[in-house]
Amino acid sequence: MRIVIAPNSFKECMTALEVAKAMASGASQACPDSEILTVPLADGGDGTAEAIVAARRGRMVQVAANDPLMRPVKVQYGLFDDDRKAVIEMAAASGLWRLKEHEKNPLKTSTYGTGEMIRDALNRGVRSLIVGIGGSATTDAGMGMASALGYRFLDEYGNELAPIGDSMNLVAQIDSSNVLEELHETEIFVASDVTNPLLGPNGAAPVYAPQKGATPEMVEILEKGLSRMSSLLERDLNAAVGDKPGGGAAGGLGAGLMAFCDAQICSGFDLIADYARLDDALDGAALAITGEGKIDSSTQFGKVPAGVMRRAQAKGVPVVGIAGALVGDRTLLNEHGMAAMFSIAPGPISLQDAMEKAGDYLAHTTEQVVRLWQCRT
Amino acid sequence: MRIVIAPNSFKECMTALEVAKAMASGASQACPDSEILTVPLADGGDGTAEAIVAARRGRMVQVAANDPLMRPVKVQYGLFDDDRKAVIEMAAASGLWRLKEHEKNPLKTSTYGTGEMIRDALNRGVRSLIVGIGGSATTDAGMGMASALGYRFLDEYGNELAPIGDSMNLVAQIDSSNVLEELHETEIFVASDVTNPLLGPNGAAPVYAPQKGATPEMVEILEKGLSRMSSLLERDLNAAVGDKPGGGAAGGLGAGLMAFCDAQICSGFDLIADYARLDDALDGAALAITGEGKIDSSTQFGKVPAGVMRRAQAKGVPVVGIAGALVGDRTLLNEHGMAAMFSIAPGPISLQDAMEKAGDYLAHTTEQVVRLWQCRT
Repeated sequence: MRIVIAPNSFKECMTALEVAKAMASGASQACPDSEILTVPLADGGDGTAEAIVAARRGRMVQVAANDPLMRPVKVQYGLFDDDRKAVIEMAAASGLWRLKEHEKNPLKTSTYGTGEMIRDALNRGVRSLIVGIGGSATTDAGMGMASALGYRFLDEYGNELAPIGDSMNLVAQIDSSNVLEELHETEIFVASDVTNPLLGPNGAAPVYAPQKGATPEMVEILEKGLSRMSSLLERDLNAAVGDKPGGGAAGGLGAGLMAFCDAQICSGFDLIADYARLDDALDGAALAITGEGKIDSSTQFGKVPAGVMRRAQAKGVPVVGIAGALVGDRTLLNEHGMAAMFSIAPGPISLQDAMEKAGDYLAHTTEQVVRLWQCRT
Repeated sequence: MRIVIAPNSFKECMTALEVAKAMASGASQACPDSEILTVPLADGGDGTAEAIVAARRGRMVQVAANDPLMRPVKVQYGLFDDDRKAVIEMAAASGLWRLKEHEKNPLKTSTYGTGEMIRDALNRGVRSLIVGIGGSATTDAGMGMASALGYRFLDEYGNELAPIGDSMNLVAQIDSSNVLEELHETEIFVASDVTNPLLGPNGAAPVYAPQKGATPEMVEILEKGLSRMSSLLERDLNAAVGDKPGGGAAGGLGAGLMAFCDAQICSGFDLIADYARLDDALDGAALAITGEGKIDSSTQFGKVPAGVMRRAQAKGVPVVGIAGALVGDRTLLNEHGMAAMFSIAPGPISLQDAMEKAGDYLAHTTEQVVRLWQCRT
């Protein structure tokens, strides 16, 4: 009897791999004879590299890169399938978490470090790449990333510009004569569920820049810069990305990846679930268990639990969700197809206690779920 | 398909009847076609009358009685089986909850009100009685109760004594010439799981009197008084109850009920489960659900959940426990035979939130339990 354990991370508490391991230990306690397959997942954000590396038995590598303010840092990304493929999280180098509160300023930040990771992968021979974008500190339309790959951004006097948000308004020409050859031989998939376009009221600047430290004045400057970049991408690279869905993700990195790298934007969950071979695991499974740190049933049904549910349903496998906290009416989730939902809290406890003992609570709850599920005679 | 719902109360939060109703609403949400039998239970303490009245479709009656300090109060007890039987909780009249903190003093308190309830029942024609004892404010060896039934306690000058803890040391003779005739025609079962004897280091005074407000000096006075009462019960009533198990329950009311009323002490859970016809309900059931406010798996496996588990196991019915809070390792409970255990907490919440929304949380959790249980294909 096969049990598939396919959770997201419990944000700020446990990685998807840790969650999957805790769940697996509880499940095997309840049912020692079962075949337990762990498929840690992600939705394109945090944990994307780890999930794919775990599923494909790849490895994480550490390389030198620059953070959003161009300070040298060590970053990690994943290699898999005999190092022929890579999975990169933009936030590893260019994430908001890299900055102190007073350093947040999308006029000054750059996706350069993300480009360095891509370059490192290309240099190793990688020709197939997944880029998870989410949690960015930047609004540079991918200018920084492109710089690291050989693109040059020139002002009206032909001088090269620093690839930061502020420079977008000064770009007069995009020079692609020195771009890395390997980039054209490489397929790039962007894992993202953001559908916002690059420009306009739902675009990268008004919607996302404020949380990266932009004042209303900065948002205006950035919007102008993104608009200018959009025109130049069309003129110099023949890439019309201004209104494409997903172009606004990660401060326009979505649009930049499409224009500079001919990347394809994919649903984060589906991309990762496919690479993690979730469907194969579900084939012939008797039960699937998914989970996420917090599930708000009324407004935001987590992407990973919903995705696992959908795929399990398609194969007729009952799926149970386990969360750190369930907010709202669980029946709504049941109606969507979740067989049952449980919280790991063993009673009235503090958030601190819940975070500190999450591993134990998860194992205990999963054990009870599997025990109950198998007691039906 | 039959589902039996047989919980204890969630102490200081919901009665067993309320718990059972909330669980039933959740279960029927999950499985509308099932036959759901609710069997609210108790262990002899709080909720004993309500549980039996609910099971036997009896009724609660309200009568005048005296509280532990002989102040008039209204109290309730249950009548069932066409008013031929009654179930009385001593705490209704003589409980510690009747007193303010500064009023607690077992030298001054009396079980008289408990006797008044018994008398009222006998006057209505009741000849079979259950007395739940627990939560008493008294240490009078049942002297107060006996007074209400016609016993007289005389000092060495033949004067009648007030039936309070303090008087025990002054009793020279127990006069039973005016005892209610009906008492001798009546069977009385005491629901109690206390096994402490009346006297000695494990007796009523040293073990229980302190929590009723007794100082160490008072405990000594009470121990002497209980000892004197024990001798007189043997001399005047031919009842040797000083070292009988359970005699120390409710400040010696256990011994008093045995000596004055020829009562039989029974396991609270078993007595109530039998009256509530739990075994009949379990016959042919597919699932049993029990619960209690708090279950500490390491030290105190609640009497009701343990009892329901035992009886369900005997009939091959899987049993699931639902608690407000689970403390300790659930696997211990599984090893005892509980198929699975869940808490109603939907995440890290405060005790206040848990208490206020317990009904909703219970219904939700029960619904998920039944959904999970029935999803096994």
